[in-house]
Amino acid sequence: MEYGTLVEDIARLRKSFRTLSTSSAAIRNALLLRIAQGLENDKATLFEANQADMRAAQEAGEKTPLLKRLKFDEDKLAGVCEGIRQVSRLADPINAVTQRRLLDNGFLLEQVTFPIGVIGMIFEARPDALVQIVSLCLKSGNGIILKGGKEAVLTNRALVASIRTSCEGSPLGSDWLILLESHDDVNAMLAMDKDIDLLIPRGTNAFVRYVMDHTKIPVLGHADGICAMYIDKSADLDMALKCAVDSKIQYPAACNALETLLVHADVAQALLPKLAQAMAENGVVLKGDERVRGYIDCEVATEDDFHTEFLSLTLAVKIVDSYGAAVDHIAAHGSHHTDCVITEDVHTAQRFLRDVDSADVFWNCSTRFSDGFRFGLGAEVGISTGKIHARGPVGLAGLMSSKWLLRGHGETVAEYSGPHAKKYLHEELSTGGVSLAGVFEE
Amino acid sequence: MEYGTLVEDIARLRKSFRTLSTSSAAIRNALLLRIAQGLENDKATLFEANQADMRAAQEAGEKTPLLKRLKFDEDKLAGVCEGIRQVSRLADPINAVTQRRLLDNGFLLEQVTFPIGVIGMIFEARPDALVQIVSLCLKSGNGIILKGGKEAVLTNRALVASIRTSCEGSPLGSDWLILLESHDDVNAMLAMDKDIDLLIPRGTNAFVRYVMDHTKIPVLGHADGICAMYIDKSADLDMALKCAVDSKIQYPAACNALETLLVHADVAQALLPKLAQAMAENGVVLKGDERVRGYIDCEVATEDDFHTEFLSLTLAVKIVDSYGAAVDHIAAHGSHHTDCVITEDVHTAQRFLRDVDSADVFWNCSTRFSDGFRFGLGAEVGISTGKIHARGPVGLAGLMSSKWLLRGHGETVAEYSGPHAKKYLHEELSTGGVSLAGVFEE
Repeated sequence: MEYGTLVEDIARLRKSFRTLSTSSAAIRNALLLRIAQGLENDKATLFEANQADMRAAQEAGEKTPLLKRLKFDEDKLAGVCEGIRQVSRLADPINAVTQRRLLDNGFLLEQVTFPIGVIGMIFEARPDALVQIVSLCLKSGNGIILKGGKEAVLTNRALVASIRTSCEGSPLGSDWLILLESHDDVNAMLAMDKDIDLLIPRGTNAFVRYVMDHTKIPVLGHADGICAMYIDKSADLDMALKCAVDSKIQYPAACNALETLLVHADVAQALLPKLAQAMAENGVVLKGDERVRGYIDCEVATEDDFHTEFLSLTLAVKIVDSYGAAVDHIAAHGSHHTDCVITEDVHTAQRFLRDVDSADVFWNCSTRFSDGFRFGLGAEVGISTGKIHARGPVGLAGLMSSKWLLRGHGETVAEYSGPHAKKYLHEELSTGGVSLAGVFEE
Repeated sequence: MEYGTLVEDIARLRKSFRTLSTSSAAIRNALLLRIAQGLENDKATLFEANQADMRAAQEAGEKTPLLKRLKFDEDKLAGVCEGIRQVSRLADPINAVTQRRLLDNGFLLEQVTFPIGVIGMIFEARPDALVQIVSLCLKSGNGIILKGGKEAVLTNRALVASIRTSCEGSPLGSDWLILLESHDDVNAMLAMDKDIDLLIPRGTNAFVRYVMDHTKIPVLGHADGICAMYIDKSADLDMALKCAVDSKIQYPAACNALETLLVHADVAQALLPKLAQAMAENGVVLKGDERVRGYIDCEVATEDDFHTEFLSLTLAVKIVDSYGAAVDHIAAHGSHHTDCVITEDVHTAQRFLRDVDSADVFWNCSTRFSDGFRFGLGAEVGISTGKIHARGPVGLAGLMSSKWLLRGHGETVAEYSGPHAKKYLHEELSTGGVSLAGVFEE
């Protein structure tokens, strides 16, 4: 495969976006299915490339977690192909009517969904993530510039070659997809604020934070996940234990895992010994403030521990005297990712859901539910801890912008201005059915 | 009025946001009405401050357009007070349910609207704009940091003093509002990416572009408005003339005014002489390409003219041989703001609505309709030419982010994982009624 210069590739990608964004769902879905079939056909080549990457990574002394992510075998292939086929069955995200309003008789305004343009994706050595984001961008009509982890260079190249081959039979071509390979390309991408409309970095929190701090391009991603659970004085304590344990141990390295437990003083005596036992049975190390250590034997929690995302089997525990102290703690220490209250008191729960300014605010369940698949978003683009454009788990909707469409019969603003102005109706209409742009047939 | 240091003011503003974002609509609306009444009560002081600003501006040799914007008199006061009272009557933008889904029986997920946080507003010497944006931020539960044009310094100070006095009787206080005055404060604001969540600059295109290029904060604003109208071979030519004239002359300095007219070759002979006459009668200077000048006598249009936002009574005219040439021209020369097709052919119109990637894509009406009030958005925050978060005319919705609320009964992710996993229902529910957070009563 030969590439032109990046500038030429991007010019072709921009042009390709016009075709892609106005293509019918049938054409995009057919290409998705071709891509899945193509990957299955090319599996020998893909596995061979991946085995070379795996050998190089092992020789470089890479650790097991990286090797696990890097591995692309029958199981991973089956997973990504099933994922592509699922994406092909999702509703078309393009040209859905989100607002419809009659400005006057026969003068119809609609807001419809439209792809953003060019998505820049920077990710770690996870070949399955490459396939996933490519399929989401294709489905949503966005061009994509990819930069994968260097350990997966041969696998990524083989995957993109297979995808490009599948594109050859489609009217969409393959210009909408650019793969970058060198480390310098990351900084090049961060500076491409004229050509990339949205950056989605995946990787460590430190890496995502670096991206956010070094680009003017809007970034969809999550930095820290310092998630707290507040066990209220009116909590069902068995439920509290069950939810706290799941939140902490179900996948401790996840951004939605529990890091801080706030226990109301009234239930500390009843809860803490059982908590210590349950957590110990699951290998969790507790760090408690002075008051916690009055009830149970555990490590000392410093102020820093309540600002820390452990991402491991460690949990900071603090006793609070009131609901207000709990939400104040979360406001001062949390990262606005996912916070949960355990209580049987509806009024306290409602106050918590209202008062806590986090992407996900939960009542009586595990913090680990903050996830696009669990939320039923169909496909997960990522989790956003920003408040602009998208917040929390983001589905295909996060890859969409909008257009306003207006159909008149010769209306002028002059007629609606001045002392004898015609009046606007501004009548809201339901948003079902086909938009003014009709059905995308070609 | 005394101010602490900016750092202290911002800490108070951040704290105040917690009160504001969780306050009831009744409390916010009551304060809006108090502010309107307060401005009316303080009108002598306000007019006096404004007259001092006007004198200084006149002595500094400022031109009429600036003086007109700067003037704050009985008419402007009546306008802003009516505006505030209108905003008080709008539906509460906080805590509206935008998605509702049953993850499983009794396990309810909701996405609700929630304010963004702190809005940074930088605007020219327009005292009425200050009042408008303050009322929109208060209504939507956002804190605000304001920087007004230096020519309006005394008026702005008097307006903010009046607003602060009105706040004294409200549980919301006045810490949610900060006024900056010095020119250095603009650059200080651009660097406040930890404290300002969204910047809204108003002013010249060059200024908005400067802001966009010099900050990492998301910017809601419009830079260029190079709006085109394509008169198709199937156009009603009387309608085309009427719409073109209104688009050009109704307010030539507006970003949604027409700058480029594309005429299909088949109708050039019938249209262009009438167009030349109608435009001449309205003082519009035409610049035509070579083919246009074969039909009418007008100035020469250079390639640059088709990349120019004239913002005056000048219009560039070009003949195109096909629908495709028209949309190619718009893709290559336009600024993705507002573009319009005039045609009686439904199929051509639908293709145009689909193919043109602009914030506003119109069919058979004036480009001047791209405006929040005309669109029926209730109140206009601004017009966005970005594709992230908001696009085109933006109402109060542009000041909102969201939260995900999830109510369970002790659910854990472990139960929904592994070989004996419980299955998710993911049943979509209607979004009406009260959210899980209940009614904001306090």
